[in-house]
Amino acid sequence: MTAKSRDELVFLPLGGSGEIGMNLNLYGFGPPERRKWVMVDLGITFGDELIPGVDVVMPDIRFIAERRRDLLGIVLTHAHEDHIGAVPHLWPLLRCPIYATPFTAHLVRAKLDEADIDAKVTEIALNGSFDLGPFSIELITLTHSIPEPNAVAIRTPLGTVLNTGDWKIDPAPMLGEVTDEAALRRLGDEGVLAMTCDSTNVFVPGRAGSEGDVRTSLSKLIAERKGHRIAVTAFASNVARLETVALAAHDAGRSVALVGRSMRRMVAAAQATGYLGHLPPFVNEEQAGMLPPENAVYLCTGSQGEQGSALARIAMGEHRSAPLETGDAVIFSSRVIPGNEKKVGAMQNLLAAKGIEIITDQDHLVHVSGHPCRDELADMYRWVRPRVAIPVHGELRHMMEHKRFALSLQVPEAIVAPNGSILKLAPGDVAIIDEAPAGRVHMDGKVPVAEGEGLARARRSLGFAGFAGVTVIVDRKGKLVTAPALQSDGIPETVVAAMREAAEESARAGRIDDDEEAAERVRRAVRREAQVTWGKRPVVRVDIVRV
Amino acid sequence: MTAKSRDELVFLPLGGSGEIGMNLNLYGFGPPERRKWVMVDLGITFGDELIPGVDVVMPDIRFIAERRRDLLGIVLTHAHEDHIGAVPHLWPLLRCPIYATPFTAHLVRAKLDEADIDAKVTEIALNGSFDLGPFSIELITLTHSIPEPNAVAIRTPLGTVLNTGDWKIDPAPMLGEVTDEAALRRLGDEGVLAMTCDSTNVFVPGRAGSEGDVRTSLSKLIAERKGHRIAVTAFASNVARLETVALAAHDAGRSVALVGRSMRRMVAAAQATGYLGHLPPFVNEEQAGMLPPENAVYLCTGSQGEQGSALARIAMGEHRSAPLETGDAVIFSSRVIPGNEKKVGAMQNLLAAKGIEIITDQDHLVHVSGHPCRDELADMYRWVRPRVAIPVHGELRHMMEHKRFALSLQVPEAIVAPNGSILKLAPGDVAIIDEAPAGRVHMDGKVPVAEGEGLARARRSLGFAGFAGVTVIVDRKGKLVTAPALQSDGIPETVVAAMREAAEESARAGRIDDDEEAAERVRRAVRREAQVTWGKRPVVRVDIVRV
Repeated sequence: MTAKSRDELVFLPLGGSGEIGMNLNLYGFGPPERRKWVMVDLGITFGDELIPGVDVVMPDIRFIAERRRDLLGIVLTHAHEDHIGAVPHLWPLLRCPIYATPFTAHLVRAKLDEADIDAKVTEIALNGSFDLGPFSIELITLTHSIPEPNAVAIRTPLGTVLNTGDWKIDPAPMLGEVTDEAALRRLGDEGVLAMTCDSTNVFVPGRAGSEGDVRTSLSKLIAERKGHRIAVTAFASNVARLETVALAAHDAGRSVALVGRSMRRMVAAAQATGYLGHLPPFVNEEQAGMLPPENAVYLCTGSQGEQGSALARIAMGEHRSAPLETGDAVIFSSRVIPGNEKKVGAMQNLLAAKGIEIITDQDHLVHVSGHPCRDELADMYRWVRPRVAIPVHGELRHMMEHKRFALSLQVPEAIVAPNGSILKLAPGDVAIIDEAPAGRVHMDGKVPVAEGEGLARARRSLGFAGFAGVTVIVDRKGKLVTAPALQSDGIPETVVAAMREAAEESARAGRIDDDEEAAERVRRAVRREAQVTWGKRPVVRVDIVRV
Repeated sequence: MTAKSRDELVFLPLGGSGEIGMNLNLYGFGPPERRKWVMVDLGITFGDELIPGVDVVMPDIRFIAERRRDLLGIVLTHAHEDHIGAVPHLWPLLRCPIYATPFTAHLVRAKLDEADIDAKVTEIALNGSFDLGPFSIELITLTHSIPEPNAVAIRTPLGTVLNTGDWKIDPAPMLGEVTDEAALRRLGDEGVLAMTCDSTNVFVPGRAGSEGDVRTSLSKLIAERKGHRIAVTAFASNVARLETVALAAHDAGRSVALVGRSMRRMVAAAQATGYLGHLPPFVNEEQAGMLPPENAVYLCTGSQGEQGSALARIAMGEHRSAPLETGDAVIFSSRVIPGNEKKVGAMQNLLAAKGIEIITDQDHLVHVSGHPCRDELADMYRWVRPRVAIPVHGELRHMMEHKRFALSLQVPEAIVAPNGSILKLAPGDVAIIDEAPAGRVHMDGKVPVAEGEGLARARRSLGFAGFAGVTVIVDRKGKLVTAPALQSDGIPETVVAAMREAAEESARAGRIDDDEEAAERVRRAVRREAQVTWGKRPVVRVDIVRV
């Protein structure tokens, strides 16, 4: 296939470029009016305290949903939530084939089943290739912190783009093959127009470190703690880490209990797709509870201090099967995701108060990052030699630094294209030629809400100063029938009492002819009273009801 | 003065032991029924997202407020908010003399004036001494990150306690004298029963580093950035840092503008008490706005990403006098306080998007901690040689580690005494002999609320799922007069509509005889409807009003 005169190759990130999370990269080929698209990844971000009541944040996919007939497929690089988490929520708007390697396919199918969605997921072998219209797709196995991380090479008549996905260079990943350097060099020899590349650790010098070294260190730590119970918490998706804990425990004469639902689920997925087969069997929680302390390791969820997680229940002393006590140890074989510092700290304080030893990546080699640090980025650029570096998977400060760093590595061109930028890669100069609607959609309960459409913000105000609703009941002549009803929450009682008086006084202050005007008068009086007695202005609604 | 047979020396922390913030240490001497007390520090903690609508958190001082006739004085170690911030809020419950060195006294007087409180603040000279009943008090100058940090040596007939306050060992503090090692050694020679000591950095190996080295590094960074505007953000109370920026700017031919109210206020306090006198004058914002880029340094508030701060307005492009643009630089000469990571990151993204260079303590020596790391703690224990180490100023995990560390340094005894522990220091064995009520009081607007008394928690629920208030208006016979009024906030419109229908249907479902029963029936119906349509259960209040 060759390019026609009006064909263009474009890149459009709808998520992950300007944030760490909810990755969604689109690649388009063809003339503007008949452009075909392929999507790489469709992830979520988890909500935080700043958007109360929102657990899941997803990209706004309006642009591609409107063009779904031209969307040829979704290629998933790996099974982390920020790469596949939005599939069950958003696939119904897209309805195109999904492509993934076996482990990722297994997990995404489970998600689709749970949501009762009948989407077609095609399994691609590791390092496999397939065609989607004008796109010739090749997967290249990298290393990361989950099984089967893939870079996606997208060949088109106007050039090749390498979408790295999440990666690091681990000479001893423990599970799966090492980074396929030869394939990357071969691609580089062939010529790569652009590389969209992971920016997460661009500020970190050196290398992320190897899972092999973590295995050595964890094995030593577990072996040394003779006679005491040990709990290890890790990201459940880090299957190599789970294997490390299982082997280290076995060497120390200990059985491993999986504690927490996502831990059991991830192990089942790994086993179903051919991983962890050679390990001694895990025991269940009940069995673990009966083991002598020196024979047990609890492998737990809860590394981020999540309420209700296995480790949280252990820290609260509420977990019957994993009863830790003074002298026992908890190993945090994970990093703290930014924003979770306080929750994790609070959990560690509970453990410390019980005299439980706490081991973290601050004091021992019990975790390594899955993302490339500067020396690894330098290796990748040396192997692939793209003409254009396009930082993705980062906040703006990461992307800007990645651009500077790529240019310092002699990459001829580097461009920061935030979510929604339509970046023309070929023919001619690389440039942002248009903008697509982009943004965030919050799952507020079951209801998707565009960011900024106000409900989370409204609830933040409620969180700050509470709510008071006043119902003023008048007769047809506008005369008060009874004292106004006031319902409130989150406001101190003394303040509510004063507000109630203010409502009645203001309602009685004049005849109620114009409902809107009267409601506003009462509303102001009530808020003013709250300001005086409390120093805060709650949300106040006033209804006039005529009976 | 000698001890009588029933005299005891006790220590009671009411804040700061089990948390970083709101420090309050009490020392008591005498027989239980006529015990005299001295308080060291009376600080606050700032609220966070987890307790919505609460800006200030203070210790619960019930125990000492009930004994205020026996409280002989409050000694303030230094002027950080976590040591003096609660004085204007809580002094009215205590009404005892306050003692502080000149800089601290100046700032606390300003706070008291602002709150219109007429408390007596006695100035004590650096390294000064004074008596308070059975307590003979000596201040010993240390180094920290604010002028005039003092340890408090408290001599009693039953032994001496050293309350270190916040400290580090800085061989070149740049402002004020170096740590008074001789006085500490002398005290050690004399014999120290117990030391209550800063635990903040107990997990950090080595030393905190010197302000002198920051001065060298900042001077170089500012000198190198020729032709560009520079903004530096720092904690306003770090007067040595402000001096560093002023001198570095001067050497580079730049004038310094103070941007942000607390920056101007802190400089005024320092100047009024004899600091910063030798510096070239600061310019005001208007003058700075007229300076050529190469002649300006903006010294800004906002290092924690605070909304509305000077740096936030600069990042938003809303600050007229400090217009940064591509190629200009912002130096974060501060650390990120845990919990503020996301806010600071968001601000840095805004700056990065404008092409502004960002320099932080991650990449350059632009900040050092004011708290002792492990080697400094070891020095202090070597100098003072207390018989008992009492970790304070830390969360439980810090205090537990500090205890272990002190014991490893051959301190004969170490004890963790969380807030509220009444710890007998002498005579006889050191032991927790009783508990005092302790806890946190939130300033909710102007209203102090005991933690756990529910309003912040109630507002968290509002933040999660919003509020709906239903008013059902019935006649005397219990017949519905009109459709129920529903007022809500924070709930999607479609959900509200469904809830409104559910309210009406349920209100019409039967005669309303028993108001409480009917209200509960409607409430359940409305919440059930929300769960079905939204997947969340908002707070619902129902009133039955008879007209």
